[in-house]
Amino acid sequence: MAATVTASLDVMGGDHGAGMVIPGAALALKRFPGLRFRLYGDEAVVRPLLDKAPALKSASTFEHCEISVRMDDKPSQALRRGRWRSSMWRAIEAVKSADATFAVSAGNTGALMAMSKFCLRSPAGIDRPAIAAIWPTLRGETVMLDCGATIGADAKALFEFAVMGAAMARAILNKHRPTVGLLNIGVEEVKGLDEIRTAGQLLRDAQLPDLEYIGFVEADDIGKGKADVVVTEGFAGNIALKAAEGTARQISSYMREAVGRSWLARLGFLLASGAFARVRKAMDTRRSNGGVFLGLNGIVIKSHGGTDAEGFAAAIEIGYSIAQSRILEEINTDLAAYRQTEAARGEAKTGAM
Amino acid sequence: MAATVTASLDVMGGDHGAGMVIPGAALALKRFPGLRFRLYGDEAVVRPLLDKAPALKSASTFEHCEISVRMDDKPSQALRRGRWRSSMWRAIEAVKSADATFAVSAGNTGALMAMSKFCLRSPAGIDRPAIAAIWPTLRGETVMLDCGATIGADAKALFEFAVMGAAMARAILNKHRPTVGLLNIGVEEVKGLDEIRTAGQLLRDAQLPDLEYIGFVEADDIGKGKADVVVTEGFAGNIALKAAEGTARQISSYMREAVGRSWLARLGFLLASGAFARVRKAMDTRRSNGGVFLGLNGIVIKSHGGTDAEGFAAAIEIGYSIAQSRILEEINTDLAAYRQTEAARGEAKTGAM
Repeated sequence: MAATVTASLDVMGGDHGAGMVIPGAALALKRFPGLRFRLYGDEAVVRPLLDKAPALKSASTFEHCEISVRMDDKPSQALRRGRWRSSMWRAIEAVKSADATFAVSAGNTGALMAMSKFCLRSPAGIDRPAIAAIWPTLRGETVMLDCGATIGADAKALFEFAVMGAAMARAILNKHRPTVGLLNIGVEEVKGLDEIRTAGQLLRDAQLPDLEYIGFVEADDIGKGKADVVVTEGFAGNIALKAAEGTARQISSYMREAVGRSWLARLGFLLASGAFARVRKAMDTRRSNGGVFLGLNGIVIKSHGGTDAEGFAAAIEIGYSIAQSRILEEINTDLAAYRQTEAARGEAKTGAM
Repeated sequence: MAATVTASLDVMGGDHGAGMVIPGAALALKRFPGLRFRLYGDEAVVRPLLDKAPALKSASTFEHCEISVRMDDKPSQALRRGRWRSSMWRAIEAVKSADATFAVSAGNTGALMAMSKFCLRSPAGIDRPAIAAIWPTLRGETVMLDCGATIGADAKALFEFAVMGAAMARAILNKHRPTVGLLNIGVEEVKGLDEIRTAGQLLRDAQLPDLEYIGFVEADDIGKGKADVVVTEGFAGNIALKAAEGTARQISSYMREAVGRSWLARLGFLLASGAFARVRKAMDTRRSNGGVFLGLNGIVIKSHGGTDAEGFAAAIEIGYSIAQSRILEEINTDLAAYRQTEAARGEAKTGAM
């Protein structure tokens, strides 16, 4: 018998707060009737909404929190004001106390990461957490990390990101041995940052059984689906993700404007609406709405602040898929095996000297 | 009377070489009948093509070069093999000797940059060159730099990029006082790299009359046209550009596939073809085909290796627009004025101590 999966939700997070989170949770419950919820938020706001969603209500526990982290709180402010008592903190804490399997918040990224680090900590041997995003590609989906948890990453951190991203790809993309590429510029030339080159060497040397390192990839390779996992440091990763999102929105905007100009175009788009629905589905960022925090003692999912109920349900779904896997154990096992190999090599080297 | 504008062309560069460059030059000549050309390439290949383009032939001089830089040559190889004698080198050298106003090559970027640096050098006071690209936006076009000339940039280099990019925006976007943004992640928070923060301070303090510094922009702001000039270091810039290009191609690919599936969709697209033509035009990367090398004693334009004659003509057109301006003088003037202010401030500070 499978263990119950419980999601702890920061009901107050996001631009639309409880009005989006509660319907989103109800949607997710419809899809996964075995799911259970721990809800944290402002009683006055949440109770009335919950009363209108009886199925969700009976699958949930609710706790009142007097503080909601604001979308524009700086991470340090949020920690000061909201530690111990905010809905965001309590949702994360439920993961730490094992009352929940994973936490979801649409609140501000910086605050959520700061609280997650403070509350859950990184396991021994992991330098820093990363934010992993799901990037829709021509071949399916790619896990990309780090999308902005930290700026800069040395070779060891990039190596750890590769191991964490591969574990996530196994969990949600059903890839037995996912391919991993390091984001770089110019694959032909011996250029690129030293850290990236060294990380490539580490990945080649490690010969991990759980992932296949395929070398450098460029940013226009991501959408082609060239690698199941794309690894980079947080600044470049955030910029790649936002440049892609911005371009997709830009093209939608051109389309809307172009169609608005003539009835012939509108008729044409009407006839082709099935085709368009396919394109929209392929580019649907709600499916890729979950930024997953990896490298912590627990799973926290960041949902887009501006998302709708459908998008929030997708973020819960990602947490649910990951919760079915043994991702945290796999990451620790892979990294421990690697450290043993390294240690053995170090001894062999010393012995030979 | 306006001075003659002469373009020196590396006829052998690009995936399609002379077969693309010669028709591209002929197209550009049709649009700008006053243009003159200096053509460098392999006589056996170029002569027959030139004989078929009499108008271009009479507007050009041609010189045989025994060496063509290969698309996969490493920069160091290209320099060793192709210095003094290759069509790429000779095209750049014509700018140095003032026989040409600007050079265009569709050859490999690394080699072209290495040769341009070696041959033209940077003016005193400019640390390093940058590659500037033209990014189509919802409001028009944005100049973005550096798109991959160098990895990493300190605050001073970013400041210089801002001055260079603004001069280019004045030259080709007809903006009297272009807005300049620094690419960063998370505009709200006090995060981001130190170099970027310091560069922002430098730009604010400088109060240059020729550009308006508007603060940080994120990668999804670029396509919105939030700034006329977006400044970043080469690694992030290259990744932003390629992520956007990749996404645009990805969406085209979804569309083609979706339309191929049903006759109704095909009929719809036929009716809406006018609207699609508008979208295609807005996203046409051929217009943005010119990567402009700034920060050298002369203008060199890098055309995409895989472009067609139309795209190569667009690259020539960019060079032509820039040649009409006094971009190199303006950059030097702006930087000199700034250095004087800085020096005066330095003295004032020392005096007060």
